[in-house]
Amino acid sequence: MLATVIHAARDIRVENVPDPVLSTGGDAIVRVVAACVCGSDLWPYRGVTPTHAPHRIGHEFVGVVEAVGDAVAKVAVGDFVIAPFYVCDNTCINCRNGVSTSCLHGGWWGSDDRFGGFADGGQGELVRAPLADGGLAVVPGAVTDDEIPGLLTLSDVMGTGHHAAVSAGVGPGDSVAVVGDGAVGLCAIIAARRLGASTIIAMSRHPQRQELARDFGATHIVAERGDIGVKAVQEITGGVGADRVLECVGTKQSMDQAIRSTRPGGMVGYVGAPNGGPELPVRPLFNRNVGVNGGVAPVRGYIERLLPDVRSGAIAPGRVFDLELPLREAAAAYAAMDERRAVKVLLRP
Amino acid sequence: MLATVIHAARDIRVENVPDPVLSTGGDAIVRVVAACVCGSDLWPYRGVTPTHAPHRIGHEFVGVVEAVGDAVAKVAVGDFVIAPFYVCDNTCINCRNGVSTSCLHGGWWGSDDRFGGFADGGQGELVRAPLADGGLAVVPGAVTDDEIPGLLTLSDVMGTGHHAAVSAGVGPGDSVAVVGDGAVGLCAIIAARRLGASTIIAMSRHPQRQELARDFGATHIVAERGDIGVKAVQEITGGVGADRVLECVGTKQSMDQAIRSTRPGGMVGYVGAPNGGPELPVRPLFNRNVGVNGGVAPVRGYIERLLPDVRSGAIAPGRVFDLELPLREAAAAYAAMDERRAVKVLLRP
Repeated sequence: MLATVIHAARDIRVENVPDPVLSTGGDAIVRVVAACVCGSDLWPYRGVTPTHAPHRIGHEFVGVVEAVGDAVAKVAVGDFVIAPFYVCDNTCINCRNGVSTSCLHGGWWGSDDRFGGFADGGQGELVRAPLADGGLAVVPGAVTDDEIPGLLTLSDVMGTGHHAAVSAGVGPGDSVAVVGDGAVGLCAIIAARRLGASTIIAMSRHPQRQELARDFGATHIVAERGDIGVKAVQEITGGVGADRVLECVGTKQSMDQAIRSTRPGGMVGYVGAPNGGPELPVRPLFNRNVGVNGGVAPVRGYIERLLPDVRSGAIAPGRVFDLELPLREAAAAYAAMDERRAVKVLLRP
Repeated sequence: MLATVIHAARDIRVENVPDPVLSTGGDAIVRVVAACVCGSDLWPYRGVTPTHAPHRIGHEFVGVVEAVGDAVAKVAVGDFVIAPFYVCDNTCINCRNGVSTSCLHGGWWGSDDRFGGFADGGQGELVRAPLADGGLAVVPGAVTDDEIPGLLTLSDVMGTGHHAAVSAGVGPGDSVAVVGDGAVGLCAIIAARRLGASTIIAMSRHPQRQELARDFGATHIVAERGDIGVKAVQEITGGVGADRVLECVGTKQSMDQAIRSTRPGGMVGYVGAPNGGPELPVRPLFNRNVGVNGGVAPVRGYIERLLPDVRSGAIAPGRVFDLELPLREAAAAYAAMDERRAVKVLLRP
């Protein structure tokens, strides 16, 4: 089969690799219908994290089940499934606590730790999904082609944006600022509106993304950063800052922007993977009672909750895909996202 | 009048100072009935924070109103009042948001910023309380002498322990670990129990404090620290850590202990002032979805909520006072707390 392999920074190739085979009894083979490139895939692409040896890449996909192991009970051949961006059993204590990203038996696509063989990551034609009963979410009924982008966002970005909002405690009437206008930030706007926020400030400098942000529910756009950006948010929110701020980037600058844009007693929900490990400055948090909550988004638990709204069209996160390419052009997909020519690229095998 | 003055590290003196006088119309003169020494008073006492020049010290007191300014409406001569450990108007947007420690017009006892003159801190015979209507909480009816210690805890430690629990989101059935067995940590145990926690782990190595912790509602004691302490908490909590951890110390070690003792998806409520400014390590928080919430406790807003339970005896935070001294022996009070011979010392003018 074909699959995407990263060889080095800016060296993405689609190559022939062995087809996956069932190995554990609890796994399934999924034929990928659509996959995508994640903002976090850009780190190795940009060389921010090193690539020591060529390896498969990708961790967001939807597809149709082609085979299941003997022990699989909840997933059947022919099912259309959404895979979260990680592997989990959805039954352990952490999963039950809503934190399936800390599953005691789970792990990451593209690895072979504890999974009975290599687990592909979705930027390819086939995937062996370990822990199929827990990880794969079945979409009931017939799936139309125009539903694919929206469903695919439930594998990561829509669930991640939702997690930012949930972690920050967004509720009816809240003022919310969103730092980051990538796919996750845009989905966080959808989530904030869905949860009842009345004021939603998109911090964005990109005209097209600003427009999408407004379509998704942003009531205000703030293009400024730093002190001026903080002041702009305060002016919109009664002089004190936003009740909830959703940090969807992961740099030290974006986190500082988020913390300083939050009102005393407010909460930052952060889902931007902290790349390079900045620490959180405790004094600006402590002195103003600003909380910080979030992390690697446990999207598996959100799929069933968000699915009805995606299918009904009540929310349209699929619009974050502004470029679609065939799988064999994966390198072009990475380049388009790297250069910010595309918010998010959908790949079709 | 007599008041406590710190001259240098370990040099506490009770001296004659001028009586305070009304100056703003919105202030009140309070005759102090009881005051106490705060854990944070030990920082300058120990020289951790420098004392550049002699200054008054103290910020927790209860007393009887002796005079009020023309504009004071809610507080009357003769009222028994509890003062929070800071000055606030209890009406600004931050106060209304429940974060009166960030009051737009407030500040700190022992300062003369924006208050129309010096505002004493309570370790003395008289206090001029600026913003009397907002800051002072009136205790209705007659106050008996044995109520004094409990009421005095509402000026800081009981409200601060409560804030740790509220910030961590403690609710019915939760498992809670409390890091720190000082007065605030002990009050946090009271708060956790009051909010319905079913498992309460006191991390304490001090036999007498362990006993008080059990009296207050601790179901388990963990004397260990570091990896062994984390493991002990995990063993009590199904292998994953406590749902909520209340950090009531403020050192890098105690914060690390708290973060690592929290289960994935759990929350640290922290009220130990971060002395020396350790930063929060973002990766252990992000990777495990452990949130951090809290700060300078806005106790003014908790006084009315906790007062009925203190007066009815449903909770007995006054028991944290294990030594009572006359004001003129303030130096001995500091020494007793510094040497951990006393949990908390009550001073009577």
